[in-house]
Amino acid sequence: MDFLQKFTGASNRNASIVCVGLDPDLERIPDHVKSAPDPLFAFLNEIVAATRDLVCCYKPNFAFFGSSGRSGWESLEALTRIIPEDIPILLDFKAGDIGNTAAHYARMAYERIQADAVTVNPLMGLDAVDPFLSYRDKCCFLLCLTSNPGSSDFQRLETNDGPLYQAVAKKAVTWSSTGPCGLVVGATHPKELSEIRGIAPTLPFLVPGVGSQGGSAEEVVKNGRDETGAGLLINASRSILYASSGKDFAEAARSATIELRDQLAAAPA
Amino acid sequence: MDFLQKFTGASNRNASIVCVGLDPDLERIPDHVKSAPDPLFAFLNEIVAATRDLVCCYKPNFAFFGSSGRSGWESLEALTRIIPEDIPILLDFKAGDIGNTAAHYARMAYERIQADAVTVNPLMGLDAVDPFLSYRDKCCFLLCLTSNPGSSDFQRLETNDGPLYQAVAKKAVTWSSTGPCGLVVGATHPKELSEIRGIAPTLPFLVPGVGSQGGSAEEVVKNGRDETGAGLLINASRSILYASSGKDFAEAARSATIELRDQLAAAPA
Repeated sequence: MDFLQKFTGASNRNASIVCVGLDPDLERIPDHVKSAPDPLFAFLNEIVAATRDLVCCYKPNFAFFGSSGRSGWESLEALTRIIPEDIPILLDFKAGDIGNTAAHYARMAYERIQADAVTVNPLMGLDAVDPFLSYRDKCCFLLCLTSNPGSSDFQRLETNDGPLYQAVAKKAVTWSSTGPCGLVVGATHPKELSEIRGIAPTLPFLVPGVGSQGGSAEEVVKNGRDETGAGLLINASRSILYASSGKDFAEAARSATIELRDQLAAAPA
Repeated sequence: MDFLQKFTGASNRNASIVCVGLDPDLERIPDHVKSAPDPLFAFLNEIVAATRDLVCCYKPNFAFFGSSGRSGWESLEALTRIIPEDIPILLDFKAGDIGNTAAHYARMAYERIQADAVTVNPLMGLDAVDPFLSYRDKCCFLLCLTSNPGSSDFQRLETNDGPLYQAVAKKAVTWSSTGPCGLVVGATHPKELSEIRGIAPTLPFLVPGVGSQGGSAEEVVKNGRDETGAGLLINASRSILYASSGKDFAEAARSATIELRDQLAAAPA
């Protein structure tokens, strides 16, 4: 099953466009889980069990595994084994390197970690993206306009092809004829989300920044949907994972996911 | 010892500005090494032994370890243990993510992998770079104008602050007052190297693209040196690692490193 089929299937089955970001931070994991042999896995195992009927995708963030070294890599492998086969895994990695190296990152993401999709930083241009495009059953999401304050440093610079983020969106549309790709557009930029949807009417958008970062669910749905009313993966990480720091963290994560899912479903057409 | 001290020390001691890029590709490692229990490590162990008196830095490329999964991580850890303490390790990783995540990547690079420096993709702006700057004894090298063909897709776009690569160089100069940073500028762009040196007179430059990618050693030295005649790390990877595919691969790597070192030393002032 390719990424798009998995995503559409999970989204329809669970009536959800919520992607849960898996950013397991040892400093924020509830105390009673910290003593498990593999605390990152123990924490996420409960999060996945509590949310698997509510999501369209899971997005593990490589940094939060990498910072634990080799044991973090083992936690990530263990995690990918318990995510249900019919829910896609989007590895948040923001890879970007010359072609020869990018091919190794694609192999890492798709063959070692068994991801269905990956985030890619497009700054180095087509040869950095191409090895990802060549996996036709996967999908690479290119950073277009990110949700963080620093997005204004370069992504909003006016170029002779519009603001840089528009230039990225235009290239992504061209490159999507070679292989599947999407865009990362932060929920904190609702006006630009609508502009970018105008440029890329059919690409899937990964939208972080709802929740902890303050983006509005309603605005995202209004401005980000494609013509069919789909094409959105709305990511929330911290607001779900750390909804409670107590023994009820998994139930609290479930409630927070339901709340976001229903808020998105209720957003006016 | 901080990065700059290690780099300057090794560079003076070995009379070299050659940085050897460690990109161990299982498909290119000589056959007789492939059967070792840890072929990536066995290969690089010989490369390091053959070149350690000839270099100013080693640059392991994370992709070439990550593509082997968990065992690749183990190879990378083993490698960092045999690189002499007085030669800096620059982890080529091209990290770039929002502050909270970037802090985890910095921890991965500096505390787990024990790197002295790291490459960072600046597209996401200051909060993606800041956690790296906060390690005052390290150095982060920001992608400015990369050596690959795709560098023209976005890095050369004209913005209202000059071509994008110049905007990156200007920000790096500002940000360097917060913490140590440098720039990545490809040897394949000699004219722009000189422009960028004009913008950033005192930052260290990591210069890939000499060797397999065709950049000229002489042009790089002429255009890239800082006012003191230093400030350059000239990286070569494939042209050294794969100088021979036979049993003499380590000797061939040594010869290729000597040749590049001497070529750089002979470049006219």
